[in-house]
Amino acid sequence: MVIVMKLGSKDTEVNEVAKILESLGLGIHISQGAERTIIGVIGDKRVLSDVPLELMSGVEKLVPIVESYKLAGKTFRPEPSIVDVSGVKIGGKELVIIAGPCAVESREQILEAARAVKKSGAHILRGGAYKPRTSPYAFQGLEAEGLKLLLEAKEETGLPIITEVTSEKAVEIAEPYVDMFQVGARNVQNFQLLREIGRSGKPVLFKRGASTTIDEWLNAAEYIMNEGNYNVVLCERGIRTFETATRNTLDLSAVPVVKNMSHLPIIVDPSHAAGKSIYVGPLSKAAVAAGADGLIIEVHPNPKCALSDAAQQLTPDSFDILCKDIAKIAEILGREFKNAQ
Amino acid sequence: MVIVMKLGSKDTEVNEVAKILESLGLGIHISQGAERTIIGVIGDKRVLSDVPLELMSGVEKLVPIVESYKLAGKTFRPEPSIVDVSGVKIGGKELVIIAGPCAVESREQILEAARAVKKSGAHILRGGAYKPRTSPYAFQGLEAEGLKLLLEAKEETGLPIITEVTSEKAVEIAEPYVDMFQVGARNVQNFQLLREIGRSGKPVLFKRGASTTIDEWLNAAEYIMNEGNYNVVLCERGIRTFETATRNTLDLSAVPVVKNMSHLPIIVDPSHAAGKSIYVGPLSKAAVAAGADGLIIEVHPNPKCALSDAAQQLTPDSFDILCKDIAKIAEILGREFKNAQ
Amino acid sequence: MVIVMKLGSKDTEVNEVAKILESLGLGIHISQGAERTIIGVIGDKRVLSDVPLELMSGVEKLVPIVESYKLAGKTFRPEPSIVDVSGVKIGGKELVIIAGPCAVESREQILEAARAVKKSGAHILRGGAYKPRTSPYAFQGLEAEGLKLLLEAKEETGLPIITEVTSEKAVEIAEPYVDMFQVGARNVQNFQLLREIGRSGKPVLFKRGASTTIDEWLNAAEYIMNEGNYNVVLCERGIRTFETATRNTLDLSAVPVVKNMSHLPIIVDPSHAAGKSIYVGPLSKAAVAAGADGLIIEVHPNPKCALSDAAQQLTPDSFDILCKDIAKIAEILGREFKNAQ
Amino acid sequence: MVIVMKLGSKDTEVNEVAKILESLGLGIHISQGAERTIIGVIGDKRVLSDVPLELMSGVEKLVPIVESYKLAGKTFRPEPSIVDVSGVKIGGKELVIIAGPCAVESREQILEAARAVKKSGAHILRGGAYKPRTSPYAFQGLEAEGLKLLLEAKEETGLPIITEVTSEKAVEIAEPYVDMFQVGARNVQNFQLLREIGRSGKPVLFKRGASTTIDEWLNAAEYIMNEGNYNVVLCERGIRTFETATRNTLDLSAVPVVKNMSHLPIIVDPSHAAGKSIYVGPLSKAAVAAGADGLIIEVHPNPKCALSDAAQQLTPDSFDILCKDIAKIAEILGREFKNAQ
Repeated sequence: MVIVMKLGSKDTEVNEVAKILESLGLGIHISQGAERTIIGVIGDKRVLSDVPLELMSGVEKLVPIVESYKLAGKTFRPEPSIVDVSGVKIGGKELVIIAGPCAVESREQILEAARAVKKSGAHILRGGAYKPRTSPYAFQGLEAEGLKLLLEAKEETGLPIITEVTSEKAVEIAEPYVDMFQVGARNVQNFQLLREIGRSGKPVLFKRGASTTIDEWLNAAEYIMNEGNYNVVLCERGIRTFETATRNTLDLSAVPVVKNMSHLPIIVDPSHAAGKSIYVGPLSKAAVAAGADGLIIEVHPNPKCALSDAAQQLTPDSFDILCKDIAKIAEILGREFKNAQ
Repeated sequence: MVIVMKLGSKDTEVNEVAKILESLGLGIHISQGAERTIIGVIGDKRVLSDVPLELMSGVEKLVPIVESYKLAGKTFRPEPSIVDVSGVKIGGKELVIIAGPCAVESREQILEAARAVKKSGAHILRGGAYKPRTSPYAFQGLEAEGLKLLLEAKEETGLPIITEVTSEKAVEIAEPYVDMFQVGARNVQNFQLLREIGRSGKPVLFKRGASTTIDEWLNAAEYIMNEGNYNVVLCERGIRTFETATRNTLDLSAVPVVKNMSHLPIIVDPSHAAGKSIYVGPLSKAAVAAGADGLIIEVHPNPKCALSDAAQQLTPDSFDILCKDIAKIAEILGREFKNAQ
Repeated sequence: MVIVMKLGSKDTEVNEVAKILESLGLGIHISQGAERTIIGVIGDKRVLSDVPLELMSGVEKLVPIVESYKLAGKTFRPEPSIVDVSGVKIGGKELVIIAGPCAVESREQILEAARAVKKSGAHILRGGAYKPRTSPYAFQGLEAEGLKLLLEAKEETGLPIITEVTSEKAVEIAEPYVDMFQVGARNVQNFQLLREIGRSGKPVLFKRGASTTIDEWLNAAEYIMNEGNYNVVLCERGIRTFETATRNTLDLSAVPVVKNMSHLPIIVDPSHAAGKSIYVGPLSKAAVAAGADGLIIEVHPNPKCALSDAAQQLTPDSFDILCKDIAKIAEILGREFKNAQ
Repeated sequence: MVIVMKLGSKDTEVNEVAKILESLGLGIHISQGAERTIIGVIGDKRVLSDVPLELMSGVEKLVPIVESYKLAGKTFRPEPSIVDVSGVKIGGKELVIIAGPCAVESREQILEAARAVKKSGAHILRGGAYKPRTSPYAFQGLEAEGLKLLLEAKEETGLPIITEVTSEKAVEIAEPYVDMFQVGARNVQNFQLLREIGRSGKPVLFKRGASTTIDEWLNAAEYIMNEGNYNVVLCERGIRTFETATRNTLDLSAVPVVKNMSHLPIIVDPSHAAGKSIYVGPLSKAAVAAGADGLIIEVHPNPKCALSDAAQQLTPDSFDILCKDIAKIAEILGREFKNAQ
């Protein structure tokens, strides 16, 4: 960190700041510029997280030099991490496809979806049991009943399952059923939930919030990792911007940026970003070409009858065609998608 | 709602849509335009919330005509609501000031803060016991101990107290202590939490999320009201934009917009929006001039020693001067701030 | 367009609105809903562009049903347009690559760049002669001298040339030299400039503004097309969001959205969006996979010595490798990039 | 500026950077941190504006310490500037009100508007002669004819006049007529136009762009000031965000932020930000309470017949009432609005 002193700050003010830093065991480096004095701070800045240096007399601002997260960063682990979800490895050579309906709606629906996505090469089955919806008058999920149906689909197809958890209680209930938790965009800074998932140790798909910077996202991942759970897979799903033609603006730059700043795997959710099924294909291919480690795609046996987010779910047939295209792009990128036929 | 059919859609497609709407008990009105056919839908659209009309053959898009929230809207209640917090009325003629430190840090700190803000005319005491922080390495609040200290401050000063709750468990723990819950920006769409607060019936200060539209915010309030708790006070606290000179961009237009669309009271938090104490004064005055029903301002007996958000907390002296100015502006707006001296 | 009347509006108010519409030759369709009356308007809404219906007594709001642009839309021309730039066809089967340095800096630099990008398969040479820069103290381009050097590079390599024009005067000066104009993001709504380019009839690469919605962008294109110049190629180059890890957020969804709404070709500029050369490769591949008709990439013989935007320019060697990868992805998408070796 | 070297950068890399800086006459200060080496740069950084240090081997990033603008900053002139517009002083004790119709539409309309706003206390008359409109099919202004009508209104009422100029040609044409130029939001980075206005020396109302940061805005002002024209008045008019309830989000924080960073006066345009006349009153009062030096408000003798932006223009009567309220708030802020009755 660098502390920038105000124009015309006095030596006594500079010394005051220096004294505090030294008392906390930090090294300092004072540099007298043409206009301003700056103080470089050396050492572990975590001791400063609750010290309001910016309020000290003569201080203009603090400029961070290195990122504030540790465990999620490349400094902590320079090599890419691979997260193992009941045998499926995310972050390795194989491109991983998570697919399934937005919400579990019925036994028949989830089984049919599971068979279809398995046939096309998907590695993990998704299905929402707890659905956070903008309006309280919309379908909110089958809850515990949905988890049982997911498990049945797993038993039949052998696909590991993932579901979204939206509260500490849901973590407790879902834990025995699922292979991977999902934290949705709205809960990216629900720190109690993140700690609970951290304690569980189970792999987690951690979606970016609609208005979360990459830096804040990695700091939030730190809440999970700080509890000892390093099985975090990031998921870009679109950010909120002024553009209204799509539900969100998919930020595919986040893929190479995260690869540059973190060792964690990153996959992409084109369905929620686009909000319309006709855009899912192009964005899926783009995500793979940008270097994503996988995709999470909504597939419904009969989208027209879906109880939530109907407009963005693919039919099994379109999903099958998409998987074939994706496999070819993956190959050009030096990756594999062996499951696809 | 209006359903816009695609260019060149067929009569059979229009009829198909009409049939579904009628089967749900809705009225319809078909209008053949120069380029497109549109279908007006008449009746309670809540029956449509899970029907994916946009996937039907020939349908181009759905255009909502009226807002999707009900209880929070002016159609439901045209007159402004007044929320009673242990005798303090928010939304009436008196401008209500909530003040206190960002976080409860110690017995001495919260008592000193309480006495100071009471003296300057504040109506309600704030203080965080559970602090959601961007980094897990920062101070996270005194939790239950903080609640006891708040209660002590209430007993001494007579000021009702408000604290943020960040999980269903925190609601349970805090309920016996506080007069009003606060839901923070990060939890604006934590629907489980909202329902829990709805069930409690206690007044709630409901902050807008950093990337929540006013429409989504009112829909989220609906989660609380739908459980029977109508004691909701909205709080504008800044939205996330591309501008980085302030922590958030305070959207003061939200004040007249909410007054135009909803009967719920709305107050403003200039402290979190600005992120710097020098901006709190001008923004507080602006908020009152824009017609806000009150303010929530961070005041700390000694900001330089604050354990969180130090840079944005006012000293008791600056707060006192600010209250005097605010009282004068309130008067011009036809309101009162009697407590201020 | 649909006109939504206020709750409780009177019949006389509805009739008043109806009368005005009919006097303008428009058809109407009145629909009495449960809560509100709505009036559907039939006919060419351009006659309404300066009639403030929203101010009439009893009117709550106007809801547009179809887009406001005409010539840029699919209704006007359902088939994709192909723009011919001195023999290079943009929007057809061949993926078109525009490449070259950010700015023309010297004879040697532009010639060397031209030869390099030609060798790797680029179709058109880019190079800025007029550089709009955030600070007036930065290099502003060689102006007329730069145009002559571009022409020399064209004569040697046979590549058509494109340069940015930032004023009506620049259009006049550049016209005899270049094969295609570029309108930069900052001038997307510089309507005088757009009209001037419209009158010239020359092909134009029309960049999206950093905060322009796709709808506004297509409306702005209408300014060019309305003068009779249909040779418009759109270029997505990143929008301004809250994220600061990249210079802009590349909105690749814009590719399928534009393909869905307009017949105009669309290419992508990954260099300005990313702001860093290490992100250019992944984003270029992603853009092609998303269905873009081409790319515009900054390539500099020696980026370390570049006078502007150095950080985002590729070396000829990285560009060459990238072209080979892109050619393979193009093939999977059913396109060609024959020039690439 | 501080140069942050990469983790594990070599001494030779640090020396290489140091050498270049010294060769440019800059001082340096090397600081070896726990994780990284940083190099403080001392001296006038304008010599670095075209040196791509970030591409040098071992360099991770550059961190600016002081703002890049000079003439617009407080370092250059610590005291507030007062801009004189034909006798009206903006930035002094008197709150300055600019008012008039969005566009000049007819002789009768502009004269009537001028008399009305003069009567209520306005200091300067506004009226658009060149109207940049989103769609080419909307009214584009009376151009030169509009200027003549404005002049006639000036001669009758004695009010100085301001009009928007959208191109270098318009500057030339408007110069003999107007007392102050206006640069609109869309032209905030039309640098050719800014230089032309800089050369004219005439006072200019310089609106912020819809997606311009305050830092970029002040840098753009630098283009005008760098030509010797210091008569710049800034104007906040709303920024583009995800919120759609208002046309733009008025960023009133910009008022105290600009006051903190620059000596230039700043006024507020509530009309364009709000987009609806019912919001103009609350936002005008809020702007004055936030410390703005003035307001620019759209007033039309008969808004229902306005040819552009009808929905946001006040009637003379509402404007008169607003002026009275504003005068009272100004007084509380220690300012005057003497003209108001």
